[in-house]
Amino acid sequence: MTSAAPIHPVILCGGSGTRLWPVSRKIKPKPFLPLIGEQTLFEQAVGRVSGDDRFAAPIVVAGEAHCDIIEEQLAGVESYRLIVEPKGKNTAPAIALAAAQLPSDAIMLVCPSDHHIADEAAFRNAALAAADLAREDWLVSFGIAPERPETGYGYLHRGNPLPGGFQIAQFVEKPDLETAQAYLASGEYSWNGGIFAFRSGALLGELDTHRPSMAQAVAVSVAAGRLQGSRFYPDAGAFEEIEGDSIDYAVMENTKRAAMVPVDMGWSDIGNWAALHDALAQESASSDGQSSGGKGNIQRGSVDFDACRNVLAISDGPRVSAVGVEDVCIVVSGNEVLVTTREGAQRVGKLPGASNQ
Amino acid sequence: MTSAAPIHPVILCGGSGTRLWPVSRKIKPKPFLPLIGEQTLFEQAVGRVSGDDRFAAPIVVAGEAHCDIIEEQLAGVESYRLIVEPKGKNTAPAIALAAAQLPSDAIMLVCPSDHHIADEAAFRNAALAAADLAREDWLVSFGIAPERPETGYGYLHRGNPLPGGFQIAQFVEKPDLETAQAYLASGEYSWNGGIFAFRSGALLGELDTHRPSMAQAVAVSVAAGRLQGSRFYPDAGAFEEIEGDSIDYAVMENTKRAAMVPVDMGWSDIGNWAALHDALAQESASSDGQSSGGKGNIQRGSVDFDACRNVLAISDGPRVSAVGVEDVCIVVSGNEVLVTTREGAQRVGKLPGASNQ
Repeated sequence: MTSAAPIHPVILCGGSGTRLWPVSRKIKPKPFLPLIGEQTLFEQAVGRVSGDDRFAAPIVVAGEAHCDIIEEQLAGVESYRLIVEPKGKNTAPAIALAAAQLPSDAIMLVCPSDHHIADEAAFRNAALAAADLAREDWLVSFGIAPERPETGYGYLHRGNPLPGGFQIAQFVEKPDLETAQAYLASGEYSWNGGIFAFRSGALLGELDTHRPSMAQAVAVSVAAGRLQGSRFYPDAGAFEEIEGDSIDYAVMENTKRAAMVPVDMGWSDIGNWAALHDALAQESASSDGQSSGGKGNIQRGSVDFDACRNVLAISDGPRVSAVGVEDVCIVVSGNEVLVTTREGAQRVGKLPGASNQ
Repeated sequence: MTSAAPIHPVILCGGSGTRLWPVSRKIKPKPFLPLIGEQTLFEQAVGRVSGDDRFAAPIVVAGEAHCDIIEEQLAGVESYRLIVEPKGKNTAPAIALAAAQLPSDAIMLVCPSDHHIADEAAFRNAALAAADLAREDWLVSFGIAPERPETGYGYLHRGNPLPGGFQIAQFVEKPDLETAQAYLASGEYSWNGGIFAFRSGALLGELDTHRPSMAQAVAVSVAAGRLQGSRFYPDAGAFEEIEGDSIDYAVMENTKRAAMVPVDMGWSDIGNWAALHDALAQESASSDGQSSGGKGNIQRGSVDFDACRNVLAISDGPRVSAVGVEDVCIVVSGNEVLVTTREGAQRVGKLPGASNQ
């Protein structure tokens, strides 16, 4: 192991979290809410890469609408850079904006701002392993140990071993249930968690190979951008013309240097209310030894349960009384009341209330 | 049939309706709410015996706390008497108070104020038949055609036929499910719906025989009472000493002159949210031919259903979004949100919110 230059954390704040409506709303979406514990998911994401001189000051990429709340939530952070995306264009352009602001030999650790990670030590170990591979010009994805045959995620199939990781033999998008079950049984597949390590120059080089017009537009936009305090404003003109794409589609699935580091760190994307329920149940069981009488109920705010099982009830004010119900999520926020099954939780983002904010 | 003196309706307003919390609250309980249609249940109860010269002006029996709201809701009624119970003592004393205010040959029709009756013509026909039997000094209960093997009601077993009805061979309190199923199959049993016809003097005579101290206390209380406008205030002293009891226990189950008139009138006691759901579903199907897409969902206020079945959702303000849930009632009222299964609806009155108002 080299005693290396620090890793540059890049925190992406583009997610809207509409499936966590009505708590997550356009004006204050999922990353900026204290969904688990007292810190917001964004604060936790920043905290995981702070207070450790192996990490440099974080670079945050976000839309203008959320810059004020981000700077509020960065109040305790000594130094940071906030890149203000002219428009949301998915992850590839956002990551490229950060890469273009860094020296070409800088190692970037790209992290979503709206995931939960229970085991921070496991996260840091994986980050260091991924950085070591990135220094050798591998483009590295975190491969999350799968906990169930999830059909909503992408999977990484491990190939040849590398120091601290593996080459990626194959990317698989959202498999059907049978396939997902086979993946889980094989032990050869990991979830694609959206966390990456790259050498800045390597990332931009691969982008230029596989998405030349995107790479060009980002370069122009950064060259014509302006710095204002801690905020960097890329030029809107070229950026707005970009055809948005994810880093997986634009780069990872095309490069010959795709690698992964396997990690088991109590990860959740908190993708919907049922996922938050699971994460809170795990947190509550591990942090204070309390279960909810073995019934799997979780409450936040004023809640009375009577003969309920596996219910999540969250209220920002009114009392919730739940009688006899099982496997549902009840969420009261502002002038909205949501009652959904765990299965239905996937569809919450499509509700009239979530769509027409 | 005699062209008889008018029937005196006696409307009892003692029910608290705690199982319809959080909409039904102490200050404005169930009878005074527009749960089905635009009129309140109390207004409907009064309306059923109005505008027809076979009925005299109604006598309403209620507690002091509800007198103002009652007089508001009686605004369209030309003439009435309001008897103010010094204290709730169950139905026998309440009915006796009304009887003691009437000539001994007056025919009383005792009606709860918090039931729903879909078929008013059937109700009136039964009322006339019951009155005819009451004139012959039968103490008459309405025997409601049972629709299901309900275990929460009392049953009447018909005996020998009478003109327009039957003697009651047996009273049965809340049978178990197997017994209730046998009753339903036999065709010999009716639900005891709490609607009665008596000759005033006959009722007081039977009360004096079977509950002499209660009869005495009521007599004293009425003798020492005072009339104030439309309100009659029985003297509190004697009345408060009464050991409360239902008219069934105090009189009907003891008299040898118990009779019943069978009636099928779309009756519901709207005993809980599931019962209201059923009544609203029936009403909606019959009144406008609309079903809720065949899914049995009923909504009042701002509600979005997504893949729900057999859900009742009621809100006095906030929007309710329900996803994937089945067979539940969701009620939003003031600062309370209730989510209950149909089975759990029975227990709503015991919730902390319903108990500690």
